[in-house]
Amino acid sequence: MIDRLLMKLRARDEISADEEEALRAAVGEIVRHPADVTFIPAGKLLHSSTLLIEGLIARYKDLSNGERQITELHVPGDFADLHSFTLKFLDHSIMTVTPSVIVQVPHEKLQAITENHPHLARVLWFMTNLDAAIHREWVVSLGRRSALKRTAHLFCELQLRLGIAGLATERGYALPITQTVLAECLGLTSVHVNRVLKELRERGLVEFRSGRVTILDLPTLRRLAEFDPAYLYLDKRPR
Amino acid sequence: MIDRLLMKLRARDEISADEEEALRAAVGEIVRHPADVTFIPAGKLLHSSTLLIEGLIARYKDLSNGERQITELHVPGDFADLHSFTLKFLDHSIMTVTPSVIVQVPHEKLQAITENHPHLARVLWFMTNLDAAIHREWVVSLGRRSALKRTAHLFCELQLRLGIAGLATERGYALPITQTVLAECLGLTSVHVNRVLKELRERGLVEFRSGRVTILDLPTLRRLAEFDPAYLYLDKRPR
Repeated sequence: MIDRLLMKLRARDEISADEEEALRAAVGEIVRHPADVTFIPAGKLLHSSTLLIEGLIARYKDLSNGERQITELHVPGDFADLHSFTLKFLDHSIMTVTPSVIVQVPHEKLQAITENHPHLARVLWFMTNLDAAIHREWVVSLGRRSALKRTAHLFCELQLRLGIAGLATERGYALPITQTVLAECLGLTSVHVNRVLKELRERGLVEFRSGRVTILDLPTLRRLAEFDPAYLYLDKRPR
Repeated sequence: MIDRLLMKLRARDEISADEEEALRAAVGEIVRHPADVTFIPAGKLLHSSTLLIEGLIARYKDLSNGERQITELHVPGDFADLHSFTLKFLDHSIMTVTPSVIVQVPHEKLQAITENHPHLARVLWFMTNLDAAIHREWVVSLGRRSALKRTAHLFCELQLRLGIAGLATERGYALPITQTVLAECLGLTSVHVNRVLKELRERGLVEFRSGRVTILDLPTLRRLAEFDPAYLYLDKRPR
């Protein structure tokens, strides 16, 4: 159940058998949600963190004019809200983008990990810092990358993050989301996203169709996006 | 030396005398930097984290076309790179925006805190999650807020963050930065920032002049920005 989490962690550090056991013991029951369900509303007091097993989840904020900004997409093996362990409630909401399978990890179990497994606690701390690094990269994309480069960058990011979870190759990956959701990640309108997708396809770089991203030319796509994977911390240093 | 850090922490949780002592013992020597110095370049292996005592510091990334995006501004009492404790190197650079006084906190001392003071370790973990919350709010601003609202939002954020450190009132605060730096935070051009500042002044909301932000009407400024301070987690819950 936590295999994809372990793949994600072990891409960054050694996790001992003892630590793996502590993680397995911390996991609660499986819950299934359909698509488009806000299962963690902003402001709700939380007593557990959510680990995504299957599906796609988004953190988001809505503005008063009805516009939505997604601040991160979560792939299997990600905690959707490991940060709620220290924040206690979230300033944003979390929704399923596709039908999703999740498990809850009670905060009291995470607290026990911080008290009995300091290295594993640092690895979990690292995981929330990795989310922050992804946030910063989105700040750079939204602030300074053109719509074309920004979209290309997101496709590169998801290719790598899904790849670590065994869910993408260099040829592509399933991404069963609408252009509206893509627009909500990219700070664009759906119409603008549609135009950008056309240009990426016509340039022979990437195709997004029928819930699938088909990568036609990964090196050129990465060059266009100025994609530097350093922010995903795929080095293996002791945390 | 760590008084502003303690003010920031105690606005969010109880810090015991014992924990305060552990923090004081972790702090190394004072270093002074002039303005505009990149003292932590991206990719450099780090063995200590930097606490800002006086001044203003920015995390940033440069793109190949020479454009810069600042991803967070740090005020006194902030760690500029507490996240480097688990990341080991940064995917972005850190520079002084104004002349700054910093102290180094060796990672081995932080590691000892995670092993001997689990509650204090959770508070420090929380601090990096607070940075991530600020990143998310900037994602929302850059993705969905107009240039006017986005600028208003940044002024509201800094008023509150500097206020916690005793460096702002509801009337305003010192912000000795250029319009270029402001533009690099806001994903705008300097010319655009200049126009927005004029509009904010003409609306009687806020004035940015000679390195000072003078707040003329805080409630209306906050309403314009849709500023909800929930993301700064000024509740006092045990972490």
